[in-house]
Amino acid sequence: MPSHTQQSAVTVLGLGPMGRALAGAFLDAGLAVTVWNRTPGRDLELAGRGASSAPSPEAAVAASPLTVLCVVNYDAADAIVRRDAVAAALKGRTLVNLSADTPGRARDTAAWAAGHGVGYLDGAIMTPTGTIGTPAAVFLHSGPADLYDEHRPVLEALGGAHTHLGSDIGRAASYDIALLDLFWTAAAGYAHALAVARAEGVTARELAPFAKNIAAILPAVIESGVAEVETGRFSGEGNPMTSAASSMRHIVQAAEAHGIDSGVMRAAEGLVRRAIGRGHGADGFLRVTDLLNPVSANG
Amino acid sequence: MPSHTQQSAVTVLGLGPMGRALAGAFLDAGLAVTVWNRTPGRDLELAGRGASSAPSPEAAVAASPLTVLCVVNYDAADAIVRRDAVAAALKGRTLVNLSADTPGRARDTAAWAAGHGVGYLDGAIMTPTGTIGTPAAVFLHSGPADLYDEHRPVLEALGGAHTHLGSDIGRAASYDIALLDLFWTAAAGYAHALAVARAEGVTARELAPFAKNIAAILPAVIESGVAEVETGRFSGEGNPMTSAASSMRHIVQAAEAHGIDSGVMRAAEGLVRRAIGRGHGADGFLRVTDLLNPVSANG
Ligand SMILES: NC(=O)c1ccc[n+]([C@@H]2O[C@H](COP(=O)([O-])OP(=O)(O)OC[C@H]3O[C@@H](n4cnc5c(N)ncnc54)[C@H](OP(=O)(O)O)[C@@H]3O)[C@@H](O)[C@H]2O)c1
Ligand SMILES: NC(=O)c1ccc[n+]([C@@H]2O[C@H](COP(=O)([O-])OP(=O)(O)OC[C@H]3O[C@@H](n4cnc5c(N)ncnc54)[C@H](OP(=O)(O)O)[C@@H]3O)[C@@H](O)[C@H]2O)c1
Repeated sequence: MPSHTQQSAVTVLGLGPMGRALAGAFLDAGLAVTVWNRTPGRDLELAGRGASSAPSPEAAVAASPLTVLCVVNYDAADAIVRRDAVAAALKGRTLVNLSADTPGRARDTAAWAAGHGVGYLDGAIMTPTGTIGTPAAVFLHSGPADLYDEHRPVLEALGGAHTHLGSDIGRAASYDIALLDLFWTAAAGYAHALAVARAEGVTARELAPFAKNIAAILPAVIESGVAEVETGRFSGEGNPMTSAASSMRHIVQAAEAHGIDSGVMRAAEGLVRRAIGRGHGADGFLRVTDLLNPVSANG
Repeated sequence: MPSHTQQSAVTVLGLGPMGRALAGAFLDAGLAVTVWNRTPGRDLELAGRGASSAPSPEAAVAASPLTVLCVVNYDAADAIVRRDAVAAALKGRTLVNLSADTPGRARDTAAWAAGHGVGYLDGAIMTPTGTIGTPAAVFLHSGPADLYDEHRPVLEALGGAHTHLGSDIGRAASYDIALLDLFWTAAAGYAHALAVARAEGVTARELAPFAKNIAAILPAVIESGVAEVETGRFSGEGNPMTSAASSMRHIVQAAEAHGIDSGVMRAAEGLVRRAIGRGHGADGFLRVTDLLNPVSANG
């Protein structure tokens, strides 16, 4: 609905790399965009593209029915919005918090918002800044369905796929935590792989095509993990945990022989060895999920 | 060259999940396949499909010009082949060791093979058993080029992509270590993500489509890492290390609040905090690669 978004106004608080990408995508979509950031100067490029720079967060939120907040975490978010002047300006308006933090912090902020007559939605962005405004962007949202539906056209101006995960305000953060867990752990594995490769005389360029092959295997691992968790049967028929433990040991040995800290892999190996010690050596690797968080008696 | 492979004979030592997949693919390609495994009975299905079961490793290697060895590691490989009877039977023949271990072990076995007049190639398999015999399989090889060229038609009967990485016999293992580092670390991240999701009331099924989106981001992370390592400039412009540290902290907090061991993420977070402590907070995450393995003065 171009006519709707044409007339819509939105405020963006926080102009780190992600906040700037969000504000830029809103501008590209033709919205009236007001911006504010703690440290001055981050708004210059956006102002050149037509954004209005507000002198304070309270002035910024007063300019639009919807404010999108995107800062490093909820300590930063609280430092910006949990002040009397901002609460007063937000009253009767809606705040969408796209900052990352724990589900508990999202719930706590929702309680604060309810106590101040502020509509509150929580969200998470699952893709890098370069995807914002493109079909590749992935946004997760949670909070009251009617509030989400009301602001959905503006949010969808950011491009990409938007999923409302339900009214439990902590749900977007729950997904975010789990997904960033996968992302940052994999990134740590890649950083370590690059260090080991370099020590072995293999360049990042040489490794890359094969590393991409490894990334290409992960969707199947993810899918088979779903079936295993659902059935509680972690098949090691194609690849037993004992084989994983052996590979992990080689990695630690080879890396440490070059003086490379292997704490991440040592921790992963420790998990696998504990699972083997509990009699799961013939099971598949993902059996460690149950070791980490045992299925409850009634779950 | 079907007529060539039609007449070729190959021996497979080790009938774990991967050894069985290799022997099965050789059978499907029409080769004369001889098999042996330490524990009896693993050969039954293959024998039913036409494989010859040998009573000992020495009898097995004597049946073919080329022997493919695929067991859990080089301790197991040595226990099988480093015996007088097997060395004598292998003399003048070629052994391809597709067992995983460190580059050092590959070099050590090459020295043993040279001392016993045995042709020796080392290799690594980078994809799961289900890919063997299909275009999705990925094999890495290293060792003398002429020996590789000679046996290449038989090896290619396994399907998939075969890459000869050069004559340095340890090279396939170097790639293997680095690539499995990425794979098993990512798998550990997924296992932990599943545990955290479950504790938060998010099912594996609900998480899966978004987890696959995360996997889909990795090729771009891999590619940008190449440019960063090559230039020594790790840009945090789109995503600074301080932001990664904040995300990692949320994950540890949320997981440990549910009693979930987060040693893997704690180790990754520790790396990032050390990099920040050394003044790299505004850099991109992959800067930790240099912390793990500093670029040498002349490198
Ligand atoms: N970058 C990505 O690729 C990406 C992807 C998905 C999700 N995210 C999420 O998006 C959020 C923002 O990330 P980002 O990439 O823009 O960078 P960031 O480094 O996580 O956040 C920077 C922003 O936080 C503000 N900030 C930090 N401490 C503050 C405080 N005490 N008071 C007020 N403002 C404070 C900064 O203001 P100053 O300029 O004044 O320091 C800046 O606006 C994070 O939660 C991140 O996890 C980012
Ligand atoms: N499975 C996969 O998806 C996959 C993918 C890529 C690479 N690989 C690599 O392929 C190799 C084989 O893996 P796998 O999946 O078949 O399972 P595995 O559990 O790693 O290896 C099982 C094989 O090792 C043998 N073995 C273990 N200890 C032995 C010893 N002391 N003496 C003689 N034989 C011994 C077993 O014989 P017994 O039956 O007598 O125990 C069996 O033949 C490993 O190096 C693995 O890293 C596997």
